[in-house]
Amino acid sequence: MAARRRLGAHVVGWNRSPAALESALELGAIDEAVASVADLGDVDIAIASVSVDALPAIVGELCEVAPRAVVTDVGSTKQALVNAVAAQNFIGGHPLAGAEATGVGHAREDLFDAATWYLTPRSQTPGVMYERLAHFVAGLGAVPTAITPTDHDRLMAAISHLPHVVANLLVAQATEALGGETLPATGPSFRDATRVAGSNPALWAQIYAANRVALDTEIGDLIRRLGEVRELLHGADLAAWQDAAARQRRALLDVGLAGGGPLREIRASVPNKPGVVAQLALALGRAGINITDMSLAPEADNRTGVIALWVGAGDAERAIGLVGGLGYPAA
Amino acid sequence: MAARRRLGAHVVGWNRSPAALESALELGAIDEAVASVADLGDVDIAIASVSVDALPAIVGELCEVAPRAVVTDVGSTKQALVNAVAAQNFIGGHPLAGAEATGVGHAREDLFDAATWYLTPRSQTPGVMYERLAHFVAGLGAVPTAITPTDHDRLMAAISHLPHVVANLLVAQATEALGGETLPATGPSFRDATRVAGSNPALWAQIYAANRVALDTEIGDLIRRLGEVRELLHGADLAAWQDAAARQRRALLDVGLAGGGPLREIRASVPNKPGVVAQLALALGRAGINITDMSLAPEADNRTGVIALWVGAGDAERAIGLVGGLGYPAA
Repeated sequence: MAARRRLGAHVVGWNRSPAALESALELGAIDEAVASVADLGDVDIAIASVSVDALPAIVGELCEVAPRAVVTDVGSTKQALVNAVAAQNFIGGHPLAGAEATGVGHAREDLFDAATWYLTPRSQTPGVMYERLAHFVAGLGAVPTAITPTDHDRLMAAISHLPHVVANLLVAQATEALGGETLPATGPSFRDATRVAGSNPALWAQIYAANRVALDTEIGDLIRRLGEVRELLHGADLAAWQDAAARQRRALLDVGLAGGGPLREIRASVPNKPGVVAQLALALGRAGINITDMSLAPEADNRTGVIALWVGAGDAERAIGLVGGLGYPAA
Repeated sequence: MAARRRLGAHVVGWNRSPAALESALELGAIDEAVASVADLGDVDIAIASVSVDALPAIVGELCEVAPRAVVTDVGSTKQALVNAVAAQNFIGGHPLAGAEATGVGHAREDLFDAATWYLTPRSQTPGVMYERLAHFVAGLGAVPTAITPTDHDRLMAAISHLPHVVANLLVAQATEALGGETLPATGPSFRDATRVAGSNPALWAQIYAANRVALDTEIGDLIRRLGEVRELLHGADLAAWQDAAARQRRALLDVGLAGGGPLREIRASVPNKPGVVAQLALALGRAGINITDMSLAPEADNRTGVIALWVGAGDAERAIGLVGGLGYPAA
């Protein structure tokens, strides 16, 4: 819907369910339905939105069927998929947006507004392909953010999958501690801490399994930290520990709430070769600088080009420094 | 304020800070201020509301100064305090109510409305003393609920202290996973799961330390459960596990939301000796039955008596069965 209405795109849809395709047409989410992936034709951007288990096969098929397209996906883990797909025209994606209700009947044009949309370009990713995809994502209303598949999966494990695991365990533990007793009226803290316990079992079983390597590492890390707390319980540093947590949460959320504000365009001269755009995007992403939009313009010699990046005005000087530090003159 | 306005009590206050006492008088929280605990006089109920560290000394002093009074406290852990105070007229207490803002300037008459107020009677607790305290607590608007100190501390560890510990660790772990990157706009789940991270460091350091035995047990239990999840990540039962968490959370919160409704009075004949009221209150508490109010009436022979208990109409038959099962005819 956002692609059609905001970008004027011609959207071709395929779904294994003919009824869902029919609804998509009726609701104006797509312009045209096709009976198989092979019928998609010569598209600019192909987006796979299926369960994590089914992604490698569909993404592989899309890369073959539409070699000129940037192929991307919206799955919640990236390392396994990126490893499984060698094709140069695939860039992994993960928009941090969604709603409780699923299915095209609940589609909304504004679903991605201001959402972080992770993209995982690789060193072999053509710059023009990354640019096309980032531009498209920004046009839907989201903030494209480059990240490596490994960093992505670790981050998701730490800020999403592990909190879900812990919520389940807190519920199990409270149930056991309560025995037959009622949960007392405790105020919102237990409810808040366990709000996501047991979310959509079929979906979450797949997410845990798809990210099992990173999640296992984060669980191991949490076990280590819990062991440290047991030591701390017998020491005198509990207030300092509690205080550090307060400062860390403030820092996390203050940073998370920043952004917005006026944009500034930065222009840099770069060699016209694969990997440069990914390198820039990843460097800025790692420094916490959102690239709100970008465009690439090759020079006449076709060996160099100018890349324009739009970042928050407050981040501009830092971004210029980082890009310059990579060896590309920027201003 | 609730004691004065709802029960017409004459409230005598002491505080180590003369300025706080002055404010309490001005705000109508107390009728009369005294310069030392020893000056409190012949009160019916004495309530210690000081930091967990300072409770044993103050409670001990109150039990000596006011031997005719029921002495109670409002501290968040009970086992250590109950062990430290041998006096028969002490009954531990813990209202699950509070607000972010502290100090008499933020006192509110309705703070305890519908809140669970745990009481820890012992076998040597005189029934009339438990009755007086439970009646008082109910008069403030709360729901008096008997529990053993051990069960109380385990429960608080599981539903409050452990979630606080975990929130701190999730914040630390996310900070490390993010490195210099910004926290992406993730929706409310990470915020919810870590809302209590770093709450009031001075207060929470004391709470953790006061409940270190039960908290250490719960942390050990969580470590064991996390180990089980690591195994589960390599198996096929993740959806069933997630589904069980959903059912457990629903059961916990449905139960927690129940209650209210019309009350019914149950009357039982009991021997007039210490420990009987505590036994009844604990048995009903363990079964998840709230005693909204109670009253004791000794028979002429002073060796037996009638106890009247008000419970939710839906719980009445179960309560009669439980009381009867303890050997006391009830109807």
